[in-house]
Amino acid sequence: MLFEFIHMTNITAERMVEHDWWTRPIPPNVIWGDGFYCESSQIFRHFKSTRENAVVLGKHVSCYAGCSFSLGKEGTCTVGDFTMLNGVLIMAEERIEIGSYCMMSWNVGIADSDFHPLDPAQRLQDALALAPYYEKRPPRPALRTAPVRIRDNVWIGMGAVILKGVEIGENSVVAAGAIVTKSVPANVVVAGNPAVVVKQLESK
Amino acid sequence: MLFEFIHMTNITAERMVEHDWWTRPIPPNVIWGDGFYCESSQIFRHFKSTRENAVVLGKHVSCYAGCSFSLGKEGTCTVGDFTMLNGVLIMAEERIEIGSYCMMSWNVGIADSDFHPLDPAQRLQDALALAPYYEKRPPRPALRTAPVRIRDNVWIGMGAVILKGVEIGENSVVAAGAIVTKSVPANVVVAGNPAVVVKQLESK
Amino acid sequence: MLFEFIHMTNITAERMVEHDWWTRPIPPNVIWGDGFYCESSQIFRHFKSTRENAVVLGKHVSCYAGCSFSLGKEGTCTVGDFTMLNGVLIMAEERIEIGSYCMMSWNVGIADSDFHPLDPAQRLQDALALAPYYEKRPPRPALRTAPVRIRDNVWIGMGAVILKGVEIGENSVVAAGAIVTKSVPANVVVAGNPAVVVKQLESK
Repeated sequence: MLFEFIHMTNITAERMVEHDWWTRPIPPNVIWGDGFYCESSQIFRHFKSTRENAVVLGKHVSCYAGCSFSLGKEGTCTVGDFTMLNGVLIMAEERIEIGSYCMMSWNVGIADSDFHPLDPAQRLQDALALAPYYEKRPPRPALRTAPVRIRDNVWIGMGAVILKGVEIGENSVVAAGAIVTKSVPANVVVAGNPAVVVKQLESK
Repeated sequence: MLFEFIHMTNITAERMVEHDWWTRPIPPNVIWGDGFYCESSQIFRHFKSTRENAVVLGKHVSCYAGCSFSLGKEGTCTVGDFTMLNGVLIMAEERIEIGSYCMMSWNVGIADSDFHPLDPAQRLQDALALAPYYEKRPPRPALRTAPVRIRDNVWIGMGAVILKGVEIGENSVVAAGAIVTKSVPANVVVAGNPAVVVKQLESK
Repeated sequence: MLFEFIHMTNITAERMVEHDWWTRPIPPNVIWGDGFYCESSQIFRHFKSTRENAVVLGKHVSCYAGCSFSLGKEGTCTVGDFTMLNGVLIMAEERIEIGSYCMMSWNVGIADSDFHPLDPAQRLQDALALAPYYEKRPPRPALRTAPVRIRDNVWIGMGAVILKGVEIGENSVVAAGAIVTKSVPANVVVAGNPAVVVKQLESK
């Protein structure tokens, strides 16, 4: 138990969450700092990344059971120190960066890809490519991805969605239900569908 | 195992999903074509339809664990070939038709009914009618339903909602978080709350 | 079984839900009237209130498995008679009042607090304060709360969000996907993000 005492975490040396009802360990390419709290390793149930250090969590990160690290084969994600993820679906095909001191509420979705092509003919090909038992699966069309960067001390409200290529500046707040399709400067509040700036915060 | 080899599916002859943690079989009035992949039979946990062939799934349909076929007693649903349902709540009191080559993301909701009357007095009666242990339950007021039709090669983004009577034309895309209250023509992108056309796609 | 017969409920004398897969009893400071139907005691998995009579449910209330009474230490919630909660996340730090004959759909969120300060410096302090294993945790900044009051016969559609301080008048309807940031009068329909009145209902 020395390990746990020093590291102040609820993850065992076998990468299991203590008292968890989900019975699989945290994937080997997930790294965390001291003070990591994980409510359940079920948050990695959609994790498919084969990248080294696919998820790198800072110190004192807390991840509650509503989260899912839904990372594709090439997906990576970093999370800074003291960030709290209540119920976030992190869908990374390339890279999603979340800063330190961030707080994310329930039913938040963050994606660095559209996952499917906009062009109808290519989209139809993608549907064929994704059928698990289809013998004549074509290759998937090239996926457009664009990293998402959420800077330090960002707060994302319930049900908000952050789409590919978006950067959210330091200290900013995304209101509940906002659909964020474009980058957001530092020190503002955005709200609405699509999200627009509704308030300026005093920067320190 | 001949059955499974021919049909290329992860459903056993006893209608159980292989390696599933949910222990109930797929309801007998659900029909599927070759190549059906079902992540868990839990997607039928809210299924109440007593109709024959209540759900008819085409070939090479894939349904992931975030889905729910929440069909009322008279509800029916058809899904075409090569359609992928990631996390869709399908609420059918009458009929929801989903075409071939469609893709639906997480937390999508589709309903062919408002489920309750708009008129306040009738709505109050519906509340009484729905109380499970109330001895003097009145009959439910007549439910207004209108079928939903989603044509081929439609892509519905994360958190979008499709309401009763809506038809979505071939090849069209519903952006993440869009609330679709009116029919959508073919070959467009709709977004917003309420959803409006934001882009024309080139038809093939 | 006399108890159950008289009270017409599916809760045992030991406060367990009959045939439930979740194995914890309903918390002792939750009170209900005759005719209470509870799909699973899992709806109290986020319940932390230490208040006496923290949740008071009227007669013939029904709570389905998508609900969560996510009450903080000081949070309280009342629900009137014949109200049906399908899938509501009730986040109360102070008080959320729900009337009689209300109906709430899937993925509805109701909160009486923003949970974190808007001011960036205070928000950063809150992130430190919320880290479970941080030895130098500062106190949490004061939380702003404002009770939510949902009057009788209110119907809240799929995916709608009701934010702190909001009162929703009798008979009113919140459309699917609406983000309600301001109080709503009686006998109207509101929709949109942010929600605005889109229809007047005939009052009785």
